[in-house]
Amino acid sequence: MSTTSGARASARTRMSPEQRREQLLDLGVRLLAERSLDEISIDVLAQEAGISRGLLYHYFGDKVAFREAVVRRAAADLVTQTEPPDEGDDIAKLLHSVTAYVDFVDANYEGYLSMVRGAASDPTLREVYDEAFGALGERFFDAGAAIVPDTPAARLLVRGWQAMTEELVLAWKAGEASLDRDALLELLVASLPALMGILPDSG
Amino acid sequence: MSTTSGARASARTRMSPEQRREQLLDLGVRLLAERSLDEISIDVLAQEAGISRGLLYHYFGDKVAFREAVVRRAAADLVTQTEPPDEGDDIAKLLHSVTAYVDFVDANYEGYLSMVRGAASDPTLREVYDEAFGALGERFFDAGAAIVPDTPAARLLVRGWQAMTEELVLAWKAGEASLDRDALLELLVASLPALMGILPDSG
Repeated sequence: MSTTSGARASARTRMSPEQRREQLLDLGVRLLAERSLDEISIDVLAQEAGISRGLLYHYFGDKVAFREAVVRRAAADLVTQTEPPDEGDDIAKLLHSVTAYVDFVDANYEGYLSMVRGAASDPTLREVYDEAFGALGERFFDAGAAIVPDTPAARLLVRGWQAMTEELVLAWKAGEASLDRDALLELLVASLPALMGILPDSG
Repeated sequence: MSTTSGARASARTRMSPEQRREQLLDLGVRLLAERSLDEISIDVLAQEAGISRGLLYHYFGDKVAFREAVVRRAAADLVTQTEPPDEGDDIAKLLHSVTAYVDFVDANYEGYLSMVRGAASDPTLREVYDEAFGALGERFFDAGAAIVPDTPAARLLVRGWQAMTEELVLAWKAGEASLDRDALLELLVASLPALMGILPDSG
């Protein structure tokens, strides 16, 4: 027993400050599943991580910097997790990304909701939110997806489709839609090509 | 001169408190064209209306109640102004309402934006916003519009279309879309039937 906990302590001390910081950020993001951003404090994290508040301040500077770091990590996780696969047709890729988005909101509901709401009034949150929102939308144009032409009207519609998707997933998650997850995914995936269908021919 | 201003003073005193309150609310809503909600204070209104702050407190109680009254009036104006005409087919009615919505946001941009943003964090604003959003969406079902069936999936899509519409109009108004007003209106009006087209047949 003492050997095991000794090995653990040793493993812990062998982590670089950067690794330790990343580990603490991971924990912060996991806490967002059931807590809003306002509820993620240094105190809560110190308790959950079983370390001192002083050490957390050492890693993150202050409360504001800590909250921003958690939000940036959560947004980066969202962008990574919704990455489309290399293989498959456009619709299969879209389904993959949309499914990952729904699962992300599902798993991180309180935190996601507080980020969406906070972005309306907090400039830092808005910046992080806009960056993530922009990165998700930009994928359609980076990848040269055949279902989405690169025109001003198409860009505007993609942005609108993203706002619609967020609204629908949050409504579904809040229990305000009488639809199961599969039916929701079907609507979301079908709606993007349907919207592209109204674009005037560029040719 | 003295007769005229005497007649004016007399006309003013003949207004009932209720009429005077309504007139002050109208002024409050007009101020939202170029001011956010946070910038609409009793002080600003007193200055614009040329009356004492004390009298405004008399009409509205306190600052919070005054702001809420202005927001409720603005939301009611939005619902009234976007009322579809009795005549015309569904698409003509939709175009009428969407045009009125775009014009409303155009004319009341700062106030509308601050309401949308404020609704994310302020429970009273959210209630007023949700009521107006709900009333605008409910129209499609009250009127039995042929383009919108009354199913859970259709209700969800209408809600998503509303979120998309808001996003697009705010982006357009912020100068973030390279589209003119007519092209924007065309996209908005065409997108609703396109979204309804993806619904599974209910029959």
